[in-house]
Amino acid sequence: MQTEKNLSNTAHDSHVAVDMVLDTAYQNISEAQWKELFSFARKSHLPEFIEDLLSGKHVNLSEDRPALHSALRNLSKSPVILDGQDVMPSVIKVWQRIDALCNQWVGVTDVIHIGIGGSDFGPRLAIEALAHVPEIESRGMRMHFLANIDTAELARILTKALPHSTRVIIVSKSFTTLETTMNAKAVVAWLKDSGLTQRQINKALFAVTANVSGAKAFGVEEEHIFPFWDWVGGRYSVWSAVGLPIALQYGFKTFEEFLAGAHAMDLHFRNAPLEENLPVIMAVALLHQQEKNGIKSYAAIPYADALDWFPKWLQQLDMESNGKSVGKDGKPIKHSSPIVFGSAGSNAQHSYFQLFHQGPEVIPIDFIAVRKPMSDRPEALAHHRILLSNCLAQAQALAHGKDANNPNDVYPGKRPSNLLLLPELNAFYLGALLALYENRAATLGALWNINSFDQPGVEYGKVLAKPIEKALGSGSDHVEANDSIDVVTAARINLLNS
Amino acid sequence: MQTEKNLSNTAHDSHVAVDMVLDTAYQNISEAQWKELFSFARKSHLPEFIEDLLSGKHVNLSEDRPALHSALRNLSKSPVILDGQDVMPSVIKVWQRIDALCNQWVGVTDVIHIGIGGSDFGPRLAIEALAHVPEIESRGMRMHFLANIDTAELARILTKALPHSTRVIIVSKSFTTLETTMNAKAVVAWLKDSGLTQRQINKALFAVTANVSGAKAFGVEEEHIFPFWDWVGGRYSVWSAVGLPIALQYGFKTFEEFLAGAHAMDLHFRNAPLEENLPVIMAVALLHQQEKNGIKSYAAIPYADALDWFPKWLQQLDMESNGKSVGKDGKPIKHSSPIVFGSAGSNAQHSYFQLFHQGPEVIPIDFIAVRKPMSDRPEALAHHRILLSNCLAQAQALAHGKDANNPNDVYPGKRPSNLLLLPELNAFYLGALLALYENRAATLGALWNINSFDQPGVEYGKVLAKPIEKALGSGSDHVEANDSIDVVTAARINLLNS
Repeated sequence: MQTEKNLSNTAHDSHVAVDMVLDTAYQNISEAQWKELFSFARKSHLPEFIEDLLSGKHVNLSEDRPALHSALRNLSKSPVILDGQDVMPSVIKVWQRIDALCNQWVGVTDVIHIGIGGSDFGPRLAIEALAHVPEIESRGMRMHFLANIDTAELARILTKALPHSTRVIIVSKSFTTLETTMNAKAVVAWLKDSGLTQRQINKALFAVTANVSGAKAFGVEEEHIFPFWDWVGGRYSVWSAVGLPIALQYGFKTFEEFLAGAHAMDLHFRNAPLEENLPVIMAVALLHQQEKNGIKSYAAIPYADALDWFPKWLQQLDMESNGKSVGKDGKPIKHSSPIVFGSAGSNAQHSYFQLFHQGPEVIPIDFIAVRKPMSDRPEALAHHRILLSNCLAQAQALAHGKDANNPNDVYPGKRPSNLLLLPELNAFYLGALLALYENRAATLGALWNINSFDQPGVEYGKVLAKPIEKALGSGSDHVEANDSIDVVTAARINLLNS
Repeated sequence: MQTEKNLSNTAHDSHVAVDMVLDTAYQNISEAQWKELFSFARKSHLPEFIEDLLSGKHVNLSEDRPALHSALRNLSKSPVILDGQDVMPSVIKVWQRIDALCNQWVGVTDVIHIGIGGSDFGPRLAIEALAHVPEIESRGMRMHFLANIDTAELARILTKALPHSTRVIIVSKSFTTLETTMNAKAVVAWLKDSGLTQRQINKALFAVTANVSGAKAFGVEEEHIFPFWDWVGGRYSVWSAVGLPIALQYGFKTFEEFLAGAHAMDLHFRNAPLEENLPVIMAVALLHQQEKNGIKSYAAIPYADALDWFPKWLQQLDMESNGKSVGKDGKPIKHSSPIVFGSAGSNAQHSYFQLFHQGPEVIPIDFIAVRKPMSDRPEALAHHRILLSNCLAQAQALAHGKDANNPNDVYPGKRPSNLLLLPELNAFYLGALLALYENRAATLGALWNINSFDQPGVEYGKVLAKPIEKALGSGSDHVEANDSIDVVTAARINLLNS
């Protein structure tokens, strides 16, 4: 096979951190280009930013606070000083409470975890990913994630759950999220209708929130409230008590391993030189593809069914953190987050890879593979080889393409990809994987000059929804446009009310 | 609220077909522009193409055959002539066999549906979507979809299924799809290990395939083989016996309703003038956004948990059908399929909508809403109003945007969207919805001059995978690059084998 030199630049091929291998050989980036990219990162004061981020500086400028989710997995317990005070004692206290709770929950058949977006994706991903780990300790509770305000989801869960042995975890940083509080009320009503006494209901309710008084007012007992802090963004919150389901289902030790993997990745991120720094390498490679190929989207394809939720989690992480048009200085920026999508391979191959190979756009791909088979079935090794061979083959085909006389059979090639290889799929490497991408998102934010820790663009729609809901509730089919409802929406309301 | 005239152009606002409302008011397309778009469609001979497609002409040029999935739902049983012969008698025969099978399957607890890509997405979407329909007839079988070659998925299914009351449906048009045949063998081995006799195993196996002799050679009895035809593409195959799970789980009548909804949409597609033709309107609106806003991606956001799988199904439909760079004539084309992604609202709002509102790119959105609440829970109406109000509010916010002194709080607006309103979520409207998008994809292919019915770009990766698998199986860590394995891939194989 003809190989182009710049597609197999062994000098920068592969890097290892936390036993994970990142192979960038197919990024088609020359040595000189890599040099330039790292030099740009230094000129952008990336090393200082990393230090500021991890040491508790107020990097979230618009909200004037730090983004300290790394403290939540700081198992070394070294002090993390925020505004003159070490946050670790309060973090450790929550760990101890989670540990204690794991030992108290006996006879629980069902857990209903109520939360949306950042309160939902992290624990859902972890619960699903770890369910596949052969021989993992599991208490075998049915973990139900209730996010949407669509009662179809609610109905499906309540048909299965056994009310007298159900525990409910209400997760909302503000404790005012509409979907979450409405769903929580509906579940409480169901417990009541199922014959539980008020005392039993109180025993069943738990909350994870920064608004302790809000949770108490809702009826959650103080010792059932797990605090988190305003310096933790929702999409970075799985490391806090938001990750309770992980500890409850798989044991506190597994939760600790999850934190440990992420912490190891943080240490790498903080200490490794830029040229060997996995999150940084991945970030600058993406930057290069934006500059060189004008890429507008990016795919993450885990060759692991256990990680089928990972692209959704990543979508939120990247698109919410960095989906912005103005920088920290309020001025328009050159680049920001591409669209992120993906799903488990090799299923994805049988779905939309046609466009990756022959579509007009260049779409970089992160292939994520796991060295060890992900079950202990007798055919695991043979099947796993097929899975891995597909993963490797796709990357090669995308990189080189193929010529043909028939234009329909031409593959243009030069489509960049990473290979990220995990030694195995367990809590530790799952933690490391998520922290890798969190740190990549922060790095990209720094290089693009974006504040990755706020999300100003989500408020307006919520504000507009309120008068619309009221108008829908009125049942009138003569709603007219007004200050907050435009003519199109008024017509739609009238149609729905008719 | 200030409303721009071109955002509320009532003349082209809303269209109804099969009781579904399509509201394009937020497409920001003027009357003159609509006119031009339909005139372009006529100049492109779209009406003739629609007629050719639905009447069995060989529109799939590269494979010299028709794309006749519409015949599979042709409940009017009017003749569909293919190469001089009516295909309907053989289609009707399969319906009768499916109907008969529904009445024979008693005492079945588990169904393992083995198929990947087009053989998987359609039935999986339908099974999940219809599970939410209040009061639907259901035989309550556990429907397991086995697609990936990752044994984690296999293990999860085999832990739950009861071997003596399990039925297995093997779905592969060619009956050579590697993932599918390997998984089928593993499931047969499991049945054997569970103590079933060969006779019992034979009784449990079913196949849906165009390769009847292949299925027989595998050990499936002839009367258990449901044929489909080479004029049905995998991604259009849910209407054939590939949709068996729908009939088996929800009854043949429900399957018929599913077909009826799609058939009604086909009749609309065939008979309505372009200006009132839903698939055509949606197609030309997308074309306009490509021309005007240079859009590279597209989102489908169903405000219905039941339709959470819909965007994945749509991804395959669009990106596999139209993700191409050359036209029917082999020449480069101006436009082809954008990236399609999405997930259920309002969850999606709490995830990546930040980028929709404030990212630099314009990403058109199809908001899909359902008029009736999607459960019969007591709180269904109240919750449904919140769901719908969020849907309407997002569309309005995206269309108009919002000005602010702080640049971080500015929403640029002018982000186009459709609202597609289904009267309710049931088999009939699900069928109509899928056929709407199928016909939209075909229309877009016609306007882009693409053959939407082949997928030349998926073969090469499969070919490359075989020698890689062999090299992985050798266990040698001294594999060298050769004609089919490049140096990067050789290094990766050596790493995995080390």
